[in-house]
Amino acid sequence: MSTSPKDARFDLVISGGTVVSSIGRFKADVGVRGERIAAVGEGLATAEAAVVDASGCYVLPGAVDAHVHPVHAETLATTSEAAAFGGVTTMLHFIYVESNSGLVESLQAAREEGEATSLLDFGLHARLTEVPRRLAELPAAVEMGVRSFKLFTAYRSRGIMTEDRDLFRAMECIAGLNGLTMVHAENGSVIELLEERYRARGHTRAEDYPLTRPPDAEAEAVNRVAMLARLARSPLYIVHISCAEALAALVAARARGQEVYAETCPHYLTLTADEAMPRFGTRAKIAPPLRTQADVAELWRALEDGRVDVVGSDHSAFAEEEKTSPQGDVFAVGFGAPGIETMLPLLYEEGVNQGRITLERLVAVLAEAPARVFGLPRKGGVAPGKDADLVIFDPAGTKTFSDDDLHGRAYYTLYAGRTVHGVPRTVLQRGKKIVHQGRLVARAGQGRFVPAKPARSKA
Amino acid sequence: MSTSPKDARFDLVISGGTVVSSIGRFKADVGVRGERIAAVGEGLATAEAAVVDASGCYVLPGAVDAHVHPVHAETLATTSEAAAFGGVTTMLHFIYVESNSGLVESLQAAREEGEATSLLDFGLHARLTEVPRRLAELPAAVEMGVRSFKLFTAYRSRGIMTEDRDLFRAMECIAGLNGLTMVHAENGSVIELLEERYRARGHTRAEDYPLTRPPDAEAEAVNRVAMLARLARSPLYIVHISCAEALAALVAARARGQEVYAETCPHYLTLTADEAMPRFGTRAKIAPPLRTQADVAELWRALEDGRVDVVGSDHSAFAEEEKTSPQGDVFAVGFGAPGIETMLPLLYEEGVNQGRITLERLVAVLAEAPARVFGLPRKGGVAPGKDADLVIFDPAGTKTFSDDDLHGRAYYTLYAGRTVHGVPRTVLQRGKKIVHQGRLVARAGQGRFVPAKPARSKA
Amino acid sequence: MSTSPKDARFDLVISGGTVVSSIGRFKADVGVRGERIAAVGEGLATAEAAVVDASGCYVLPGAVDAHVHPVHAETLATTSEAAAFGGVTTMLHFIYVESNSGLVESLQAAREEGEATSLLDFGLHARLTEVPRRLAELPAAVEMGVRSFKLFTAYRSRGIMTEDRDLFRAMECIAGLNGLTMVHAENGSVIELLEERYRARGHTRAEDYPLTRPPDAEAEAVNRVAMLARLARSPLYIVHISCAEALAALVAARARGQEVYAETCPHYLTLTADEAMPRFGTRAKIAPPLRTQADVAELWRALEDGRVDVVGSDHSAFAEEEKTSPQGDVFAVGFGAPGIETMLPLLYEEGVNQGRITLERLVAVLAEAPARVFGLPRKGGVAPGKDADLVIFDPAGTKTFSDDDLHGRAYYTLYAGRTVHGVPRTVLQRGKKIVHQGRLVARAGQGRFVPAKPARSKA
Amino acid sequence: MSTSPKDARFDLVISGGTVVSSIGRFKADVGVRGERIAAVGEGLATAEAAVVDASGCYVLPGAVDAHVHPVHAETLATTSEAAAFGGVTTMLHFIYVESNSGLVESLQAAREEGEATSLLDFGLHARLTEVPRRLAELPAAVEMGVRSFKLFTAYRSRGIMTEDRDLFRAMECIAGLNGLTMVHAENGSVIELLEERYRARGHTRAEDYPLTRPPDAEAEAVNRVAMLARLARSPLYIVHISCAEALAALVAARARGQEVYAETCPHYLTLTADEAMPRFGTRAKIAPPLRTQADVAELWRALEDGRVDVVGSDHSAFAEEEKTSPQGDVFAVGFGAPGIETMLPLLYEEGVNQGRITLERLVAVLAEAPARVFGLPRKGGVAPGKDADLVIFDPAGTKTFSDDDLHGRAYYTLYAGRTVHGVPRTVLQRGKKIVHQGRLVARAGQGRFVPAKPARSKA
Repeated sequence: MSTSPKDARFDLVISGGTVVSSIGRFKADVGVRGERIAAVGEGLATAEAAVVDASGCYVLPGAVDAHVHPVHAETLATTSEAAAFGGVTTMLHFIYVESNSGLVESLQAAREEGEATSLLDFGLHARLTEVPRRLAELPAAVEMGVRSFKLFTAYRSRGIMTEDRDLFRAMECIAGLNGLTMVHAENGSVIELLEERYRARGHTRAEDYPLTRPPDAEAEAVNRVAMLARLARSPLYIVHISCAEALAALVAARARGQEVYAETCPHYLTLTADEAMPRFGTRAKIAPPLRTQADVAELWRALEDGRVDVVGSDHSAFAEEEKTSPQGDVFAVGFGAPGIETMLPLLYEEGVNQGRITLERLVAVLAEAPARVFGLPRKGGVAPGKDADLVIFDPAGTKTFSDDDLHGRAYYTLYAGRTVHGVPRTVLQRGKKIVHQGRLVARAGQGRFVPAKPARSKA
Repeated sequence: MSTSPKDARFDLVISGGTVVSSIGRFKADVGVRGERIAAVGEGLATAEAAVVDASGCYVLPGAVDAHVHPVHAETLATTSEAAAFGGVTTMLHFIYVESNSGLVESLQAAREEGEATSLLDFGLHARLTEVPRRLAELPAAVEMGVRSFKLFTAYRSRGIMTEDRDLFRAMECIAGLNGLTMVHAENGSVIELLEERYRARGHTRAEDYPLTRPPDAEAEAVNRVAMLARLARSPLYIVHISCAEALAALVAARARGQEVYAETCPHYLTLTADEAMPRFGTRAKIAPPLRTQADVAELWRALEDGRVDVVGSDHSAFAEEEKTSPQGDVFAVGFGAPGIETMLPLLYEEGVNQGRITLERLVAVLAEAPARVFGLPRKGGVAPGKDADLVIFDPAGTKTFSDDDLHGRAYYTLYAGRTVHGVPRTVLQRGKKIVHQGRLVARAGQGRFVPAKPARSKA
Repeated sequence: MSTSPKDARFDLVISGGTVVSSIGRFKADVGVRGERIAAVGEGLATAEAAVVDASGCYVLPGAVDAHVHPVHAETLATTSEAAAFGGVTTMLHFIYVESNSGLVESLQAAREEGEATSLLDFGLHARLTEVPRRLAELPAAVEMGVRSFKLFTAYRSRGIMTEDRDLFRAMECIAGLNGLTMVHAENGSVIELLEERYRARGHTRAEDYPLTRPPDAEAEAVNRVAMLARLARSPLYIVHISCAEALAALVAARARGQEVYAETCPHYLTLTADEAMPRFGTRAKIAPPLRTQADVAELWRALEDGRVDVVGSDHSAFAEEEKTSPQGDVFAVGFGAPGIETMLPLLYEEGVNQGRITLERLVAVLAEAPARVFGLPRKGGVAPGKDADLVIFDPAGTKTFSDDDLHGRAYYTLYAGRTVHGVPRTVLQRGKKIVHQGRLVARAGQGRFVPAKPARSKA
Repeated sequence: MSTSPKDARFDLVISGGTVVSSIGRFKADVGVRGERIAAVGEGLATAEAAVVDASGCYVLPGAVDAHVHPVHAETLATTSEAAAFGGVTTMLHFIYVESNSGLVESLQAAREEGEATSLLDFGLHARLTEVPRRLAELPAAVEMGVRSFKLFTAYRSRGIMTEDRDLFRAMECIAGLNGLTMVHAENGSVIELLEERYRARGHTRAEDYPLTRPPDAEAEAVNRVAMLARLARSPLYIVHISCAEALAALVAARARGQEVYAETCPHYLTLTADEAMPRFGTRAKIAPPLRTQADVAELWRALEDGRVDVVGSDHSAFAEEEKTSPQGDVFAVGFGAPGIETMLPLLYEEGVNQGRITLERLVAVLAEAPARVFGLPRKGGVAPGKDADLVIFDPAGTKTFSDDDLHGRAYYTLYAGRTVHGVPRTVLQRGKKIVHQGRLVARAGQGRFVPAKPARSKA
């Protein structure tokens, strides 16, 4: 072994920080060679390598946001920019397939669009409708690296609800392809009926909205899809669990030995219907709706003790006209709220600083678990061989969220006025800084498509 | 930065292996400087560093065996030697305090004996009897790095059972010192009575023994001590859970929000009373006793899904005359069986190779979790700053266990005849080989006492 | 008070028997005046009254069979005859409404047919399809004394499955009318799909049939309709629960405070798929299907401890050609089996004689509970003011069931060859003998329609 | 049959009331011949029989109070008088056996005292201490009709706590005699310690008292004794369950298939610690202590749905000096409060009138269930052959409880100021009026000892 390769053994060293994983934390440099982490260790800095000083900071794996909607007011370009400022380095977003388009054709187009415009690396989930005719297209989707398929038990009138029969068939097909079934689980029939009634009676204020989507309607659907998944032998990922009842239904499935994953979102961990609906009005219309303080407390406990596996942002940025209506009719506006940029610092503040979860656990739910569940072995951790997707997180930094200083196209945030202690200082993707000290230092289009591999198999 | 330090930056490099943690596995070298891991990364080998070739092997953190009894036929020297051959690099053993000795005095003596004779690094648990008078000695024990205190709800006649009142007081005291309450949880009253009856009736065969310690007696005690721990606000570690009923009681405590840890042992995962008692007779007398196939299956599931946190060996090596009696009277022989040397390869074979748990999870329960729970931040993982306690594990190696080739002083093994695929090839402690290719390459007395720090606090 | 009325105070006295209710048993005569029980007491027999000697016998309230299908090979006349021989004195049967008929019109026709042809008193359940258009007809149905409405979550292809949306609306409507929602709860989508597949693959033997209707599909539907009932604030009666999983879902609803009733049937308590499908072939095709021995055991436990409220026969008597197919195709034959005549003696033998339930509990589930749940205050008990619907049950009588000695039009029984110890000796309706010592002593057409009152309200 | 016996066939007729049982209610007369009910029916009144007009009233079985302490300020004479005014007609009270007395000797003395002084019929429970030496005396106790034995898991310092070992032995012995194990279940060790501490710190106000007996200490003990009962195969009756946690432990035992009975008391259904301790001070010291509103609500639900089987009064009447202390030290006063006279009307008001339970259910828990559980087949119901122990209960009567108008020797009531709508108008024992329109119309000493028979066996 000659000494010359040694001299160039790292292109970049993140120096002096505390590296964090779900297992623990330790002071170490991170040596980057090309796009990947080459080593984690002490005293890795050399004269030859560029050095980023991380003293006093945590070195976290970039967040893998498994639940992103880069649509409405946004493009993938704008969403990924907001994400990067929030410490997200990989986005998994949902592709909506038009009825007259092919599934794979749509996915390919999304891949190309992403490669052309995304600031961040990205993977794709396919939104699956028109079952069973779409099922024949699934093998090709898996072939190109899309293994997660999202179905809905709600929104019949919008044409995306899948009835049990087809849900079951889809699950069987997905299971056979070693994929993952994702479900938006609420009982669409009940919700639809309640909404019709509220509208008919003119009960259309923001405060009325949560009453049209009761917790039982969510819990029922979770139980149902879990049973279907059991019969179909499919792994199952329930997106955006919002309440204790739904979580209990999922935990019961796990106790039966099923492979089921629970995702919740920042808003269910930090907002309640009673407070947020009067304050934010139609802007706080999210589905499932915001719930109670008891649900918030239970979700934090579940996040810490492992019952909830993943936090995803469910980010949706609308233009103001899409989230408001002349008469304040909550049913006339879109579902969702922005949240990708605030996710990491918000959960650090409300979770770690408030003592509800450890930083180790936060890394698990924002990076390790989504990377593992969605088959992205090079993402989600600070370890040799992984992509150098890193967040240098300054626990001494502070920031007060406001509507005005968000990136992307969101015109408001539900966290306006909240001060967080702890912010991303520098964000790297594959070894390159993309955000540094509050400024974007990379260009859209540098993101790459990350094909999903089968989730980690046993042994 | 000069180039010269670089040349000597590692004293030893474990090269070409696959490093495993609970998070995942990746191919990387491990660079050791002095006694610690300095780096984990690619291409760390240099001309200056000694190299251990780990190609084709897993590089695992040495096991932290949290449940060791280096007594009976053995000394700490012999137990630690057997342990090392089994891939254990840290032992936590129980110190029995004589009535006329001081607790700290006994711990100090144990520490000194260990430093003089142990091959392996070690920590100490104090067996706590004579509550409440001993409680005044606890602060000093904690001061010297002993934070885990074991109490018994059984063995009244042997003078080590603690009644509820004193158990509660001990828990309060331990909680106040930021320590950990460990409990051997079986209802001693019931057991004692049943044993008396079996003896009186002459039902003293090995097969009779399990019937004197029914699962309900274990589950009852687990529920009771969990309730006491809740009232006393103490974290709780239940040793050697053997059956589904007891595990359920512990899981219920966790669902109430308590900090409770569950340990099981290799024998409860691999042996049943029906098979082992006739075959091994009094040699298979262990407390709690071996259970049923249904319990074995449930414990494996619980190990994989996180309900069980730790596997400890509960190793006890007796001389043959201590485990046999002229009339085969099972009640006349000692409790326990050897198992420290076989633990890792046995669980790799029965767990990982059989597809019951992942290797990642095995590393979690044998190394990461015990190190975290017992406050040993430099043990239990392969990461910069940690002690270079490593096992180079060859999944292609095979071995058939037999009574004759065990180390230490155990004269038999309950796994005789079982062939395992996967064996430790080289074991290192703090950067030095101690076992290599089947031979001991270190001397007793090199082990160090490892004081326990408070368990990882939140954030 | 003169003495003369005294002389005629009873028209009939059942003398010397042991009267049984859920509360207990006591030796007493039963004095009947006109159609009703006038007194229960000692020494009621007088010279003026006719006397039926019940010495050595139990005097039970006639069974109220809440689950009868007097169709297929039968008419209400034949079914009620078979029922009477089995100790049933009130039948509640299901009225199927043709699409082009009115609900009330159909119920009226059924009432008239029953009054013309039924041997026994009867009430009516309305099978509710074509929701929502039928809902406007419900008030009139309730007005005429039909308060229980049965919906299906299965059988889409047969046009009787109600989707969640309409199920919910129906429940709301029923609740508003102080009625009772009955549901056949299996997930029709899953079943339909599985059946299609089995057919397509030619797996059409009787043994294949149970595999197309898995327990999870039943449990899922029970959970779903219970959640819908909770949201709709409707009491709920789940018919023919067949397995432990479904029962658990119902018990969970009860623990949430819901008013839910569980019915099971004699075949789920006495037959298993493994034994019955090979032996009886397509004749044992029942929906839900027969299950396992573990389910049988759990249902008996639940019957005794109160988790199951009612046993109904689900009697369906087909002609042989309707239950057989040339190729033995199980999917080509009808659902159901006869059971009304065997129900009481079978459950007495398997339940009471085998020590699984008390006779008191048998009276509760066969008479008291259905009368209470379905609002028939004059039925279901031996007490003053109630109709004198009585069974003189001889515990010393024996009988061996066979295909040949059944009444009605059933051509087989699934209990052929079973010997029971305990048989109805005499059956009375409203004070008149209808079956006596194995002979019919009344004519069809004497039955009366019994309108349902609201179920017993609190206090 | 001549007509002459008819004329004398009833000595007394309760005429025109509505008879109530757990099954339902019906208008009927009750004909009494001698001491027993001879018939229940319509138009039983004759010129020859005395008639008590019950028009507009309920005719209930007299309450069987299974939990009475006729001690402290009272004698059996005074307690039974208070009881009679409250609609109780059978008392089961606890016999305390002195260390130097024989168990049976004490029971015989109690029987004789009761026969000499009790206004009401009575049975006896034996308080069992000094296990194992007392066990040899149990067969003779059973022989004389005492089958229920009460043990304590608390009150070590008062010498009545039984340790697990002896508890288990006692249970085995009781089970072998077909008796019933009753347990006061709280963890005495924890309570003792907490009480010592509160005293040492001078926290001795009434409000402090409940904190020394936490719900977990009760739940733990219930779980423990249930496990012991399971191992000993003994039926188990837990007295005075006060909280949701303890009830859950008992329900879990039932789900394991155990024969366990739950008793609660009027105070746990109507009072909370937060309200009662400040208001009533040391007079509200009861063990287990009063709990929270959530516990009250859960106990009512459990009473209605069958999880709680029996309500007993736990009546204890102290002299004022026994329930007060100069410094208001709650630990210096006795445990318990009076409640036997108020029990029935209080539960009617708070339970039936408030819509929490039905009157049918109230009859079940106050009369039917205790009679069945404790083997008193002639008590607890209105049916031929049973003793004519009846309460003519006037739902239109009202009363406002106050300290001044109680009978017996209680100097206060915890229900002072509460107005009830519904009161006992007339109370009969074995056919004779003992209380009528607010006046005592019988003499002490008319009560008889009622030996316990084995509880109703299956079938």
